[in-house]
Amino acid sequence: MIVCVIGLGLLGGSFALGLKARKTPVTILGVDSNPLHARQAYNRGIADKILSLEEAVMRADLVVLATPVNVILHQLPAVLDKLPANATIIDFGSTKQQLCEAVAAHPKRNQFVATHPIAGTEYSGPEAAFASLLHGKTMIICEKEKSRPASLALVEALCHSLTMPLRYMPAAEHDLHFAYVSHLSHISSFALGLTVLDKEKNQKNIFDMAGSGFSSTVRLAKSSPQMWGPIFTQNRENVSEALAGYIAQLQQFKEAIDAQDEELTKAMMAKANDIRKILG
Amino acid sequence: MIVCVIGLGLLGGSFALGLKARKTPVTILGVDSNPLHARQAYNRGIADKILSLEEAVMRADLVVLATPVNVILHQLPAVLDKLPANATIIDFGSTKQQLCEAVAAHPKRNQFVATHPIAGTEYSGPEAAFASLLHGKTMIICEKEKSRPASLALVEALCHSLTMPLRYMPAAEHDLHFAYVSHLSHISSFALGLTVLDKEKNQKNIFDMAGSGFSSTVRLAKSSPQMWGPIFTQNRENVSEALAGYIAQLQQFKEAIDAQDEELTKAMMAKANDIRKILG
Repeated sequence: MIVCVIGLGLLGGSFALGLKARKTPVTILGVDSNPLHARQAYNRGIADKILSLEEAVMRADLVVLATPVNVILHQLPAVLDKLPANATIIDFGSTKQQLCEAVAAHPKRNQFVATHPIAGTEYSGPEAAFASLLHGKTMIICEKEKSRPASLALVEALCHSLTMPLRYMPAAEHDLHFAYVSHLSHISSFALGLTVLDKEKNQKNIFDMAGSGFSSTVRLAKSSPQMWGPIFTQNRENVSEALAGYIAQLQQFKEAIDAQDEELTKAMMAKANDIRKILG
Repeated sequence: MIVCVIGLGLLGGSFALGLKARKTPVTILGVDSNPLHARQAYNRGIADKILSLEEAVMRADLVVLATPVNVILHQLPAVLDKLPANATIIDFGSTKQQLCEAVAAHPKRNQFVATHPIAGTEYSGPEAAFASLLHGKTMIICEKEKSRPASLALVEALCHSLTMPLRYMPAAEHDLHFAYVSHLSHISSFALGLTVLDKEKNQKNIFDMAGSGFSSTVRLAKSSPQMWGPIFTQNRENVSEALAGYIAQLQQFKEAIDAQDEELTKAMMAKANDIRKILG
Protein backbone atom coordinates (compact mmCIF):
# COMPACT_ATOMS: atom_id res chain seq x y z
CA MET A 1 0.00 0.00 0.00
CA ILE A 2 1.17 3.51 -0.80
CA VAL A 3 0.26 6.10 1.83
CA CYS A 4 0.73 9.82 1.25
CA VAL A 5 1.11 11.73 4.51
CA ILE A 6 0.66 15.49 4.15
CA GLY A 7 2.07 17.18 7.25
CA LEU A 8 4.95 15.22 8.79
CA GLY A 9 4.55 16.47 12.35
CA LEU A 10 3.72 14.70 15.60
CA LEU A 11 0.52 12.99 14.43
CA GLY A 12 1.30 12.42 10.75
CA GLY A 13 4.81 11.27 11.61
CA SER A 14 3.64 8.93 14.37
CA PHE A 15 0.95 7.45 12.10
CA ALA A 16 3.59 6.72 9.44
CA LEU A 17 5.96 5.17 11.99
CA GLY A 18 3.07 3.10 13.41
CA LEU A 19 2.20 1.77 9.93
CA LYS A 20 5.84 0.90 9.28
CA ALA A 21 6.12 -0.99 12.56
CA ARG A 22 3.52 -3.53 11.36
CA LYS A 23 4.38 -6.57 9.24
CA THR A 24 2.38 -5.39 6.20
CA PRO A 25 4.63 -3.60 3.70
CA VAL A 26 3.85 0.07 3.22
CA THR A 27 5.47 2.95 1.33
CA ILE A 28 5.16 6.41 2.83
CA LEU A 29 5.26 9.41 0.48
CA GLY A 30 5.85 12.48 2.59
CA VAL A 31 4.71 16.04 1.88
CA ASP A 32 5.56 19.03 4.02
CA SER A 33 5.64 22.74 3.23
CA ASN A 34 8.50 23.12 5.73
CA PRO A 35 11.73 21.84 4.09
CA LEU A 36 13.40 21.30 7.48
CA HIS A 37 10.52 19.12 8.67
CA ALA A 38 10.57 17.20 5.38
CA ARG A 39 14.29 16.51 5.78
CA GLN A 40 13.92 15.51 9.43
CA ALA A 41 11.05 13.17 8.54
CA TYR A 42 13.10 11.56 5.79
CA ASN A 43 16.14 11.18 8.07
CA ARG A 44 14.05 9.58 10.80
CA GLY A 45 12.54 7.05 8.36
CA ILE A 46 9.06 8.52 8.66
CA ALA A 47 8.83 9.04 4.88
CA ASP A 48 10.45 6.87 2.19
CA LYS A 49 10.29 9.74 -0.30
CA ILE A 50 9.61 13.44 -0.09
CA LEU A 51 7.46 14.60 -3.01
CA SER A 52 5.35 17.55 -4.03
CA LEU A 53 1.70 17.29 -3.00
CA GLU A 54 0.55 16.68 -6.59
CA GLU A 55 3.03 13.88 -7.28
CA ALA A 56 2.37 12.15 -3.98
CA VAL A 57 -1.43 12.28 -4.18
CA MET A 58 -1.42 10.93 -7.73
CA ARG A 59 0.32 7.72 -6.63
CA ALA A 60 -1.46 7.14 -3.32
CA ASP A 61 -3.90 4.46 -2.18
CA LEU A 62 -4.48 6.48 0.97
CA VAL A 63 -3.92 10.19 1.61
CA VAL A 64 -3.66 11.47 5.19
CA LEU A 65 -4.10 15.19 5.91
CA ALA A 66 -2.19 15.84 9.13
CA THR A 67 -1.83 19.61 8.86
CA PRO A 68 -3.39 22.32 11.11
CA VAL A 69 -7.19 22.47 10.69
CA ASN A 70 -7.16 25.79 8.79
CA VAL A 71 -4.84 24.20 6.22
CA ILE A 72 -6.97 21.03 6.03
CA LEU A 73 -9.99 23.20 5.28
CA HIS A 74 -8.33 24.34 2.04
CA GLN A 75 -6.41 21.16 1.24
CA LEU A 76 -9.31 18.74 1.58
CA PRO A 77 -11.42 19.91 -1.42
CA ALA A 78 -8.28 20.57 -3.51
CA VAL A 79 -6.79 17.12 -2.85
CA LEU A 80 -10.18 15.44 -3.39
CA ASP A 81 -10.24 17.05 -6.87
CA LYS A 82 -6.98 15.27 -7.74
CA LEU A 83 -7.56 12.03 -5.84
CA PRO A 84 -7.31 8.83 -7.94
CA ALA A 85 -10.65 7.06 -8.30
CA ASN A 86 -9.62 4.05 -6.20
CA ALA A 87 -7.97 6.04 -3.42
CA THR A 88 -9.21 7.14 0.02
CA ILE A 89 -8.48 10.31 1.97
CA ILE A 90 -8.64 10.87 5.73
CA ASP A 91 -7.77 13.82 7.94
CA PHE A 92 -6.50 14.08 11.51
CA GLY A 93 -8.14 17.42 12.35
CA SER A 94 -9.37 18.09 15.90
CA THR A 95 -12.48 19.78 14.51
CA LYS A 96 -14.87 18.03 12.15
CA GLN A 97 -17.97 20.08 11.40
CA GLN A 98 -16.50 22.78 9.13
CA LEU A 99 -14.32 20.24 7.31
CA CYS A 100 -17.27 17.97 6.61
CA GLU A 101 -19.40 20.93 5.48
CA ALA A 102 -16.63 22.09 3.13
CA VAL A 103 -16.86 18.88 1.09
CA ALA A 104 -20.53 17.97 1.68
CA ALA A 105 -21.37 18.59 -1.98
CA HIS A 106 -18.06 17.45 -3.45
CA PRO A 107 -18.53 14.80 -6.19
CA LYS A 108 -15.89 12.62 -4.53
CA ARG A 109 -17.20 13.08 -0.96
CA ASN A 110 -17.56 9.31 -0.53
CA GLN A 111 -13.79 8.79 -0.91
CA PHE A 112 -13.29 10.86 2.25
CA VAL A 113 -13.47 9.39 5.76
CA ALA A 114 -13.53 12.08 8.49
CA THR A 115 -11.29 10.85 11.32
CA HIS A 116 -9.85 12.21 14.57
CA PRO A 117 -7.29 10.18 16.50
CA ILE A 118 -7.51 11.00 20.23
CA ALA A 119 -3.79 11.19 20.77
CA GLY A 120 -1.13 13.81 21.07
CA THR A 121 1.49 15.30 23.34
CA GLU A 122 2.40 18.90 24.09
CA TYR A 123 5.26 18.63 21.57
CA SER A 124 5.13 19.00 17.80
CA GLY A 125 7.12 18.38 14.62
CA PRO A 126 8.67 15.21 13.14
CA GLU A 127 11.25 14.97 15.93
CA ALA A 128 8.40 14.50 18.43
CA ALA A 129 6.81 11.60 16.48
CA PHE A 130 7.02 8.01 17.76
CA ALA A 131 5.58 4.71 16.50
CA SER A 132 3.41 3.88 19.52
CA LEU A 133 1.64 7.26 19.89
CA LEU A 134 -1.60 5.95 18.37
CA HIS A 135 -1.53 2.47 19.88
CA GLY A 136 -4.60 1.84 22.00
CA LYS A 137 -5.94 5.36 21.36
CA THR A 138 -9.52 5.86 20.17
CA MET A 139 -10.16 6.88 16.55
CA ILE A 140 -13.36 8.87 16.08
CA ILE A 141 -15.05 8.54 12.68
CA CYS A 142 -17.68 11.13 11.75
CA GLU A 143 -20.43 10.88 9.12
CA LYS A 144 -19.48 7.32 8.25
CA GLU A 145 -22.67 7.00 6.16
CA LYS A 146 -21.18 9.52 3.70
CA SER A 147 -18.09 7.41 2.99
CA ARG A 148 -18.21 4.57 0.48
CA PRO A 149 -17.99 1.08 2.03
CA ALA A 150 -14.55 0.29 0.52
CA SER A 151 -12.99 3.47 1.91
CA LEU A 152 -14.59 3.03 5.32
CA ALA A 153 -13.47 -0.62 5.46
CA LEU A 154 -9.89 0.34 4.58
CA VAL A 155 -9.74 2.91 7.40
CA GLU A 156 -11.36 0.54 9.91
CA ALA A 157 -8.89 -2.21 9.02
CA LEU A 158 -5.93 0.17 9.38
CA CYS A 159 -7.17 1.32 12.80
CA HIS A 160 -7.62 -2.29 13.82
CA SER A 161 -4.04 -3.10 12.77
CA LEU A 162 -2.85 -0.14 14.90
CA THR A 163 -4.97 -1.39 17.89
CA MET A 164 -7.09 1.77 17.78
CA PRO A 165 -10.67 1.31 19.09
CA LEU A 166 -13.27 3.01 16.89
CA ARG A 167 -16.12 5.35 17.83
CA TYR A 168 -18.66 6.82 15.41
CA MET A 169 -20.52 10.08 15.85
CA PRO A 170 -22.02 13.02 13.95
CA ALA A 171 -19.57 15.85 13.23
CA ALA A 172 -21.57 18.42 15.26
CA GLU A 173 -21.64 16.13 18.29
CA HIS A 174 -17.89 15.54 17.94
CA ASP A 175 -17.12 19.25 17.99
CA LEU A 176 -19.35 19.90 21.00
CA HIS A 177 -17.80 17.09 23.06
CA PHE A 178 -14.25 18.06 22.17
CA ALA A 179 -14.82 21.69 23.12
CA TYR A 180 -15.33 20.33 26.66
CA VAL A 181 -12.95 17.39 26.98
CA SER A 182 -10.04 18.80 24.98
CA HIS A 183 -10.18 22.38 23.74
CA LEU A 184 -11.21 23.79 27.15
CA SER A 185 -8.35 21.91 28.88
CA HIS A 186 -5.89 23.59 26.56
CA ILE A 187 -7.25 27.08 27.17
CA SER A 188 -7.36 26.50 30.94
CA SER A 189 -3.70 25.54 30.77
CA PHE A 190 -2.60 28.42 28.50
CA ALA A 191 -4.42 30.89 30.78
CA LEU A 192 -2.84 29.35 33.89
CA GLY A 193 0.60 29.69 32.36
CA LEU A 194 -0.07 33.35 31.50
CA THR A 195 -1.41 34.16 34.98
CA VAL A 196 1.59 32.65 36.77
CA LEU A 197 4.14 34.11 34.33
CA ASP A 198 2.53 37.55 34.72
CA LYS A 199 2.82 37.40 38.51
CA GLU A 200 6.14 35.66 38.93
CA LYS A 201 8.67 37.86 37.19
CA ASN A 202 11.37 35.78 38.86
CA GLN A 203 11.10 32.56 36.90
CA LYS A 204 13.45 30.72 39.23
CA ASN A 205 10.75 31.03 41.89
CA ILE A 206 8.28 29.13 39.72
CA PHE A 207 10.79 26.44 38.99
CA ASP A 208 11.75 25.94 42.64
CA MET A 209 8.30 26.14 44.09
CA ALA A 210 6.10 24.47 41.53
CA GLY A 211 5.20 21.00 42.72
CA SER A 212 4.22 18.32 40.27
CA GLY A 213 0.62 19.57 40.51
CA PHE A 214 1.42 22.80 38.72
CA SER A 215 3.53 21.00 36.11
CA SER A 216 0.73 18.67 35.13
CA THR A 217 -1.93 21.40 35.12
CA VAL A 218 0.17 23.75 32.99
CA ARG A 219 1.68 21.09 30.70
CA LEU A 220 -0.65 21.84 27.77
CA ALA A 221 0.48 25.50 27.82
CA LYS A 222 3.51 24.24 25.88
CA SER A 223 1.25 23.33 22.93
CA SER A 224 1.62 24.83 19.46
CA PRO A 225 -0.23 28.14 18.80
CA GLN A 226 -0.18 27.41 15.05
CA MET A 227 -2.13 24.21 15.61
CA TRP A 228 -4.52 25.40 18.32
CA GLY A 229 -5.42 28.87 17.03
CA PRO A 230 -7.35 27.49 14.03
CA ILE A 231 -9.04 24.80 16.18
CA PHE A 232 -10.47 27.45 18.53
CA THR A 233 -11.56 29.54 15.54
CA GLN A 234 -13.30 26.66 13.76
CA ASN A 235 -15.00 25.45 16.93
CA ARG A 236 -15.58 28.93 18.36
CA GLU A 237 -19.26 28.58 19.32
CA ASN A 238 -18.77 25.41 21.32
CA VAL A 239 -15.48 26.60 22.81
CA SER A 240 -17.05 29.90 23.80
CA GLU A 241 -19.92 28.07 25.53
CA ALA A 242 -17.49 25.78 27.35
CA LEU A 243 -15.35 28.75 28.43
CA ALA A 244 -18.41 30.62 29.71
CA GLY A 245 -19.33 27.58 31.83
CA TYR A 246 -15.76 27.30 33.12
CA ILE A 247 -15.53 31.00 34.02
CA ALA A 248 -18.86 30.72 35.88
CA GLN A 249 -17.51 27.80 37.96
CA LEU A 250 -14.36 29.77 38.78
CA GLN A 251 -16.41 32.80 39.75
CA GLN A 252 -18.52 30.66 42.06
CA PHE A 253 -15.32 29.36 43.67
CA LYS A 254 -14.02 32.90 44.05
CA GLU A 255 -17.24 34.14 45.64
CA ALA A 256 -17.30 31.21 48.07
CA ILE A 257 -13.67 31.84 49.04
CA ASP A 258 -14.24 35.60 49.41
CA ALA A 259 -17.26 34.88 51.62
CA GLN A 260 -15.26 32.29 53.64
CA ASP A 261 -18.01 29.82 52.79
CA GLU A 262 -15.88 26.74 53.27
CA GLU A 263 -18.87 24.41 53.22
CA LEU A 264 -19.60 25.54 49.66
CA THR A 265 -16.00 25.18 48.42
CA LYS A 266 -15.84 21.72 49.99
CA ALA A 267 -19.15 20.73 48.39
CA MET A 268 -17.92 21.90 44.97
CA MET A 269 -14.67 19.98 45.37
CA ALA A 270 -16.50 16.84 46.54
CA LYS A 271 -18.64 17.03 43.38
CA ALA A 272 -15.52 17.52 41.23
CA ASN A 273 -14.05 14.41 42.91
CA ASP A 274 -16.55 12.41 40.79
CA ILE A 275 -13.97 12.68 38.03
CA ARG A 276 -12.24 9.81 39.91
CA LYS A 277 -15.01 7.45 38.82
CA ILE A 278 -14.21 8.18 35.20
CA LEU A 279 -10.47 8.61 35.11
CA GLY A 280 -9.61 6.21 37.94
CA MET B 1 15.51 9.88 67.81
CA ILE B 2 11.83 9.75 68.70
CA VAL B 3 9.56 11.45 66.17
CA CYS B 4 5.89 12.03 66.85
CA VAL B 5 3.87 12.32 63.63
CA ILE B 6 0.41 13.80 64.12
CA GLY B 7 -1.69 13.03 61.03
CA LEU B 8 -0.66 9.75 59.37
CA GLY B 9 -1.82 10.63 55.84
CA LEU B 10 0.04 11.03 52.56
CA LEU B 11 2.61 13.58 53.78
CA GLY B 12 3.00 12.53 57.42
CA GLY B 13 3.12 8.86 56.43
CA SER B 14 5.62 9.43 53.62
CA PHE B 15 7.85 11.52 55.91
CA ALA B 16 7.85 8.69 58.49
CA LEU B 17 8.62 6.06 55.83
CA GLY B 18 11.38 8.29 54.42
CA LEU B 19 12.99 8.64 57.88
CA LYS B 20 12.81 4.87 58.41
CA ALA B 21 14.45 4.17 55.06
CA ARG B 22 17.66 5.91 56.24
CA LYS B 23 20.38 4.17 58.26
CA THR B 24 19.88 6.32 61.39
CA PRO B 25 17.59 4.59 63.89
CA VAL B 26 14.28 6.35 64.50
CA THR B 27 11.12 5.54 66.44
CA ILE B 28 7.85 6.88 65.04
CA LEU B 29 5.02 7.56 67.48
CA GLY B 30 1.84 7.93 65.43
CA VAL B 31 -1.22 10.01 66.30
CA ASP B 32 -4.39 10.12 64.21
CA SER B 33 -7.95 11.06 65.12
CA ASN B 34 -9.18 8.50 62.56
CA PRO B 35 -8.82 4.98 64.08
CA LEU B 36 -8.86 3.34 60.63
CA HIS B 37 -5.96 5.52 59.44
CA ALA B 38 -4.08 4.84 62.67
CA ARG B 39 -4.48 1.07 62.14
CA GLN B 40 -3.49 1.28 58.47
CA ALA B 41 -0.40 3.33 59.39
CA TYR B 42 0.60 0.82 62.04
CA ASN B 43 0.07 -2.13 59.68
CA ARG B 44 2.12 -0.48 56.95
CA GLY B 45 5.02 0.15 59.35
CA ILE B 46 4.61 3.93 59.18
CA ALA B 47 4.24 4.17 62.97
CA ASP B 48 5.92 1.92 65.54
CA LYS B 49 3.29 2.79 68.13
CA ILE B 50 -0.10 4.52 68.06
CA LEU B 51 -0.54 6.78 71.05
CA SER B 52 -2.73 9.63 72.22
CA LEU B 53 -1.47 13.08 71.28
CA GLU B 54 -0.49 13.90 74.87
CA GLU B 55 1.50 10.69 75.41
CA ALA B 56 3.29 10.94 72.08
CA VAL B 57 4.24 14.62 72.39
CA MET B 58 5.61 14.09 75.91
CA ARG B 59 8.17 11.55 74.65
CA ALA B 60 9.15 13.22 71.37
CA ASP B 61 12.40 14.82 70.23
CA LEU B 62 10.57 16.07 67.15
CA VAL B 63 6.84 16.61 66.61
CA VAL B 64 5.46 16.85 63.07
CA LEU B 65 2.01 18.34 62.48
CA ALA B 66 0.78 16.81 59.22
CA THR B 67 -2.94 17.51 59.59
CA PRO B 68 -5.15 19.87 57.49
CA VAL B 69 -4.21 23.54 58.00
CA ASN B 70 -7.36 24.39 60.00
CA VAL B 71 -6.44 21.62 62.46
CA ILE B 72 -2.78 22.75 62.61
CA LEU B 73 -3.99 26.24 63.51
CA HIS B 74 -5.49 24.87 66.74
CA GLN B 75 -2.96 22.09 67.39
CA LEU B 76 0.18 24.19 67.04
CA PRO B 77 -0.29 26.45 70.13
CA ALA B 78 -1.77 23.57 72.15
CA VAL B 79 1.12 21.18 71.36
CA LEU B 80 3.69 23.94 71.92
CA ASP B 81 2.24 24.33 75.45
CA LYS B 82 3.02 20.67 76.18
CA LEU B 83 6.25 20.37 74.21
CA PRO B 84 9.30 19.14 76.22
CA ALA B 85 11.97 21.82 76.60
CA ASN B 86 14.51 20.05 74.38
CA ALA B 87 12.06 19.13 71.61
CA THR B 88 11.31 20.75 68.26
CA ILE B 89 8.02 21.03 66.37
CA ILE B 90 7.44 21.47 62.63
CA ASP B 91 4.30 21.53 60.50
CA PHE B 92 3.62 20.52 56.91
CA GLY B 93 0.87 23.05 56.20
CA SER B 94 0.49 24.55 52.71
CA THR B 95 -0.20 27.97 54.24
CA LYS B 96 2.19 29.66 56.60
CA GLN B 97 1.13 33.19 57.50
CA GLN B 98 -1.83 32.48 59.81
CA LEU B 99 0.03 29.62 61.49
CA CYS B 100 3.06 31.80 62.19
CA GLU B 101 0.85 34.62 63.49
CA ALA B 102 -0.99 32.21 65.79
CA VAL B 103 2.19 31.46 67.73
CA ALA B 104 4.09 34.72 67.22
CA ALA B 105 3.81 35.59 70.91
CA HIS B 106 4.00 32.04 72.26
CA PRO B 107 6.72 31.65 74.94
CA LYS B 108 8.04 28.55 73.15
CA ARG B 109 7.89 30.06 69.64
CA ASN B 110 11.60 29.36 69.09
CA GLN B 111 11.05 25.58 69.36
CA PHE B 112 8.85 25.80 66.24
CA VAL B 113 10.22 25.68 62.68
CA ALA B 114 7.60 26.58 60.04
CA THR B 115 8.09 24.18 57.12
CA HIS B 116 6.31 23.29 53.87
CA PRO B 117 7.49 20.32 51.83
CA ILE B 118 6.69 20.89 48.12
CA ALA B 119 5.44 17.40 47.51
CA GLY B 120 2.15 15.59 47.20
CA THR B 121 -0.08 13.60 44.92
CA GLU B 122 -3.82 13.77 44.26
CA TYR B 123 -4.32 10.86 46.70
CA SER B 124 -4.56 10.96 50.47
CA GLY B 125 -4.44 8.77 53.58
CA PRO B 126 -1.79 6.36 54.91
CA GLU B 127 -2.36 3.90 52.05
CA ALA B 128 -1.16 6.58 49.60
CA ALA B 129 2.12 7.21 51.51
CA PHE B 130 5.48 6.04 50.12
CA ALA B 131 9.08 6.44 51.32
CA SER B 132 10.41 8.39 48.33
CA LEU B 133 7.66 11.05 48.11
CA LEU B 134 9.88 13.73 49.69
CA HIS B 135 13.18 12.73 48.07
CA GLY B 136 14.59 15.57 46.01
CA LYS B 137 11.61 17.84 46.79
CA THR B 138 12.17 21.36 48.08
CA MET B 139 11.47 22.14 51.75
CA ILE B 140 10.47 25.75 52.38
CA ILE B 141 11.35 27.17 55.79
CA CYS B 142 9.63 30.40 56.86
CA GLU B 143 10.69 32.87 59.57
CA LYS B 144 13.85 30.92 60.30
CA GLU B 145 15.11 33.80 62.46
CA LYS B 146 12.33 33.03 64.96
CA SER B 147 13.49 29.44 65.53
CA ARG B 148 16.31 28.67 67.96
CA PRO B 149 19.55 27.51 66.31
CA ALA B 150 19.37 23.95 67.68
CA SER B 151 15.84 23.39 66.35
CA LEU B 152 16.66 24.91 62.98
CA ALA B 153 19.82 22.81 62.69
CA LEU B 154 17.90 19.62 63.50
CA VAL B 155 15.34 20.31 60.77
CA GLU B 156 18.01 21.27 58.22
CA ALA B 157 19.97 18.09 58.98
CA LEU B 158 16.85 15.96 58.62
CA CYS B 159 16.03 17.57 55.25
CA HIS B 160 19.60 17.01 54.14
CA SER B 161 19.37 13.33 55.06
CA LEU B 162 16.15 13.09 52.99
CA THR B 163 17.89 14.86 50.02
CA MET B 164 15.47 17.78 50.29
CA PRO B 165 16.89 21.14 49.06
CA LEU B 166 16.05 24.04 51.39
CA ARG B 167 14.58 27.46 50.59
CA TYR B 168 13.95 30.22 53.11
CA MET B 169 11.34 32.96 52.82
CA PRO B 170 9.00 35.17 54.84
CA ALA B 171 5.59 33.60 55.57
CA ALA B 172 3.67 36.30 53.69
CA GLU B 173 5.80 35.81 50.58
CA HIS B 174 5.30 32.04 50.81
CA ASP B 175 1.54 32.36 50.86
CA LEU B 176 1.47 34.79 47.93
CA HIS B 177 3.67 32.56 45.73
CA PHE B 178 1.78 29.40 46.56
CA ALA B 179 -1.56 31.02 45.74
CA TYR B 180 -0.19 31.23 42.18
CA VAL B 181 1.94 28.12 41.71
CA SER B 182 -0.20 25.67 43.66
CA HIS B 183 -3.57 26.80 45.03
CA LEU B 184 -4.70 28.29 41.70
CA SER B 185 -3.76 25.07 39.83
CA HIS B 186 -6.00 23.11 42.14
CA ILE B 187 -8.98 25.43 41.69
CA SER B 188 -8.49 25.48 37.90
CA SER B 189 -8.61 21.71 37.95
CA PHE B 190 -11.62 21.40 40.27
CA ALA B 191 -13.54 23.91 38.13
CA LEU B 192 -12.57 22.07 34.93
CA GLY B 193 -13.85 18.80 36.39
CA LEU B 194 -17.14 20.47 37.39
CA THR B 195 -17.62 22.08 33.97
CA VAL B 196 -17.08 18.85 32.06
CA LEU B 197 -19.14 16.73 34.48
CA ASP B 198 -21.99 19.27 34.25
CA LYS B 199 -22.03 19.07 30.46
CA GLU B 200 -21.31 15.41 29.89
CA LYS B 201 -24.09 13.55 31.64
CA ASN B 202 -22.90 10.42 29.86
CA GLN B 203 -19.69 9.72 31.73
CA LYS B 204 -18.64 7.01 29.29
CA ASN B 205 -18.25 9.76 26.70
CA ILE B 206 -15.67 11.52 28.85
CA PHE B 207 -13.76 8.34 29.43
CA ASP B 208 -13.68 7.39 25.75
CA MET B 209 -12.92 10.82 24.41
CA ALA B 210 -10.61 12.35 26.96
CA GLY B 211 -7.06 12.27 25.66
CA SER B 212 -4.16 12.38 28.03
CA GLY B 213 -4.34 16.18 27.93
CA PHE B 214 -7.64 16.28 29.80
CA SER B 215 -6.45 13.65 32.29
CA SER B 216 -3.39 15.66 33.26
CA THR B 217 -5.23 18.98 33.43
CA VAL B 218 -8.05 17.57 35.57
CA ARG B 219 -5.88 15.30 37.74
CA LEU B 220 -5.86 17.63 40.75
CA ALA B 221 -9.68 17.59 40.80
CA LYS B 222 -9.30 14.26 42.60
CA SER B 223 -7.71 16.07 45.58
CA SER B 224 -9.16 16.04 49.10
CA PRO B 225 -11.80 18.73 49.89
CA GLN B 226 -11.02 18.36 53.62
CA MET B 227 -7.42 19.31 53.02
CA TRP B 228 -7.94 22.04 50.39
CA GLY B 229 -10.99 23.84 51.82
CA PRO B 230 -9.05 25.20 54.82
CA ILE B 231 -6.04 26.13 52.62
CA PHE B 232 -8.21 28.33 50.40
CA THR B 233 -9.84 29.87 53.49
CA GLN B 234 -6.54 30.66 55.23
CA ASN B 235 -4.99 32.05 52.06
CA ARG B 236 -8.17 33.65 50.75
CA GLU B 237 -6.83 37.10 49.88
CA ASN B 238 -3.97 35.81 47.75
CA VAL B 239 -6.07 33.03 46.21
CA SER B 240 -8.82 35.50 45.37
CA GLU B 241 -6.29 37.80 43.65
CA ALA B 242 -4.84 34.87 41.68
CA LEU B 243 -8.32 33.70 40.67
CA ALA B 244 -9.26 37.20 39.52
CA GLY B 245 -6.14 37.28 37.31
CA TYR B 246 -6.91 33.83 35.93
CA ILE B 247 -10.54 34.69 35.16
CA ALA B 248 -9.37 37.86 33.38
CA GLN B 249 -7.00 35.80 31.17
CA LEU B 250 -9.82 33.37 30.34
CA GLN B 251 -12.16 36.22 29.51
CA GLN B 252 -9.57 37.71 27.18
CA PHE B 253 -9.27 34.33 25.46
CA LYS B 254 -13.05 34.09 25.15
CA GLU B 255 -13.35 37.58 23.69
CA ALA B 256 -10.59 36.89 21.17
CA ILE B 257 -12.25 33.62 20.13
CA ASP B 258 -15.71 35.24 19.90
CA ALA B 259 -14.20 38.01 17.74
CA GLN B 260 -12.35 35.42 15.59
CA ASP B 261 -9.18 37.32 16.43
CA GLU B 262 -6.83 34.43 15.79
CA GLU B 263 -3.75 36.65 15.84
CA LEU B 264 -4.54 37.54 19.45
CA THR B 265 -5.21 33.95 20.58
CA LYS B 266 -1.96 32.88 18.90
CA ALA B 267 -0.01 35.71 20.54
CA MET B 268 -1.42 34.75 23.97
CA MET B 269 -0.50 31.10 23.42
CA ALA B 270 2.99 32.01 22.21
CA LYS B 271 3.49 34.01 25.42
CA ALA B 272 2.20 31.09 27.52
CA ASN B 273 4.72 28.85 25.72
CA ASP B 274 7.39 30.62 27.82
CA ILE B 275 6.48 28.14 30.53
CA ARG B 276 8.67 25.72 28.53
CA LYS B 277 11.74 27.67 29.59
CA ILE B 278 10.92 27.00 33.22
CA LEU B 279 9.45 23.52 33.23
CA GLY B 280 11.47 22.12 30.34
